[in-house]
Amino acid sequence: MKNRIAALFGIQYPIIQAGMVWCSGWRLASAVSNAGGLGIIGAGSMYPDVLLEHIQKCKKATSKPFAVNVPLLYPNVQEVMDIIVAEGVKVVFTSAGNPASWTGFLKEKGITVVHVIANTKFALKAEACGVDAIVAEGFEAGGHNGREETTTMCLVPMVKAVVKVPVIAAGGIGSGSAMLAAFALGAEGVQIGSAFAVAEESSAHPNFKHRIVQAVEGDTKLTMKKLVPVRLLKNEFAEAVAKAESEGANVEALAHLLGKARAKLGMFEGNMDEGELEIGQVSAMLQDIKPAAVILHSIWSEFLEEKNRLSALEFSDYR
Amino acid sequence: MKNRIAALFGIQYPIIQAGMVWCSGWRLASAVSNAGGLGIIGAGSMYPDVLLEHIQKCKKATSKPFAVNVPLLYPNVQEVMDIIVAEGVKVVFTSAGNPASWTGFLKEKGITVVHVIANTKFALKAEACGVDAIVAEGFEAGGHNGREETTTMCLVPMVKAVVKVPVIAAGGIGSGSAMLAAFALGAEGVQIGSAFAVAEESSAHPNFKHRIVQAVEGDTKLTMKKLVPVRLLKNEFAEAVAKAESEGANVEALAHLLGKARAKLGMFEGNMDEGELEIGQVSAMLQDIKPAAVILHSIWSEFLEEKNRLSALEFSDYR
Repeated sequence: MKNRIAALFGIQYPIIQAGMVWCSGWRLASAVSNAGGLGIIGAGSMYPDVLLEHIQKCKKATSKPFAVNVPLLYPNVQEVMDIIVAEGVKVVFTSAGNPASWTGFLKEKGITVVHVIANTKFALKAEACGVDAIVAEGFEAGGHNGREETTTMCLVPMVKAVVKVPVIAAGGIGSGSAMLAAFALGAEGVQIGSAFAVAEESSAHPNFKHRIVQAVEGDTKLTMKKLVPVRLLKNEFAEAVAKAESEGANVEALAHLLGKARAKLGMFEGNMDEGELEIGQVSAMLQDIKPAAVILHSIWSEFLEEKNRLSALEFSDYR
Repeated sequence: MKNRIAALFGIQYPIIQAGMVWCSGWRLASAVSNAGGLGIIGAGSMYPDVLLEHIQKCKKATSKPFAVNVPLLYPNVQEVMDIIVAEGVKVVFTSAGNPASWTGFLKEKGITVVHVIANTKFALKAEACGVDAIVAEGFEAGGHNGREETTTMCLVPMVKAVVKVPVIAAGGIGSGSAMLAAFALGAEGVQIGSAFAVAEESSAHPNFKHRIVQAVEGDTKLTMKKLVPVRLLKNEFAEAVAKAESEGANVEALAHLLGKARAKLGMFEGNMDEGELEIGQVSAMLQDIKPAAVILHSIWSEFLEEKNRLSALEFSDYR
């Protein structure tokens, strides 16, 4: 009856904190790992020398396992991978790219590899490349997202049906009951982004954290579909994108509108009007900024409570 | 420990077959009710005299409770409601409109009323109007859909958190494991559309049923967002809409492109190229055309099996 995800990473709870640009540096990753989950440093928003610093600080801040997330389409991937190997990082999550490109390299070095996908085609491809687990991320997730728009409720069982490696569900999970739903669908672990983006240890700008906890239903939208689909909080920038898309803007016009460094401007520098604010639908349910350990332990407690509640349900015949 | 949804309707299993245009006439509704669920006649595609015939045939075909679904924005609602009252229908599901308009009228006649919503605002409004239960339908559902694009995984717990009446989850549910996930999220019943659209007793055209069981991941898309959002199977018509939308078509252009009676053309008359084919994301997981009773009982068996599997899960500490 062992949980393959906790066993794979050598952790206490099968809860993974998503690698998120501008949010998940060494402080958040080490806090989550120290609390018994798997913390991830998000390399997507870091130059190689910055990543090196975060890995070194994380190793000092925790003796527990942690991981690095590497979006494969970003520049400097070779340099990033060399740092990861040199620093002895034991777990790498790859995303936004082809799992064929780096899985073999990392596995040869004895590193545990997990790939993030949004459809079964890439799940099968990742498994064929030798990954140890797969993150199946649904439409409701924040940030970059799949073109099929398959939700977590549909994606997790579809992926589970075709792969043998354990599946980690992502998208729409910020509570113990959602974690239990993911396990009902066949997941053996969960990856949680938004709920940790508002952790005290998250490096997101305070303005962004406050905006997230104020977010209500319908405040996020999957946008930029002609470019790279991304779920954003609605603000002045997102409204401008929506207007341009509604009027038929093409890829070039959208790329021009996006410009450079908007995610940093919003999420890290706190410009709530002009920044790109990546967050999931679950933001509507987040109410507080709390330490990562409190967030993790309350999700785990609720998971166990809800598991007991569900187990105890009995059904009578009311005909 | 009683299940409020089964008790409310006087049924055996808390499984409701969605009222679906061109699919759910008396044959499907009575088959589902006879099998122990709640069958629903979908009035949305019926002239009042056709509805009357379906209700009368349904009463002859089953002694068990069944319901009628009435989209409130359609014409002839008064006439439809008068038929429902005169025929002694005991349960009405209202959708696509304001719950304030008809809930009081139906409740005064002693009818159990359920309203379908896609956001918490309308859930609260429906509850205030006195409905007996609420269907919370997520983004992955087929047919007409909410503008917020909130998925079942996020919508069900949000609705559950604010209402006291029982919540029925809809969208992405076509299996026992998805039903269990809905219960983990706080639902006390499920409404299932797509999986019953392909039942032998569904009045959908055989061409449509075969197209559904052949559908793969990414084959449906929420479209017509400027008009009324609707999830459709991709075909020649849906591609034409996607192209028009991508080029910035306005409401009038989309309405013109849609024209009249396209849902009937596709779903009932079997024109797979030019028809409007309403179905959910879960269609990618449907493989066979089977009797409604077989579909219902296999979902229920899997629900109980998965509930046992989930209950038995134990977690060790792998630190």
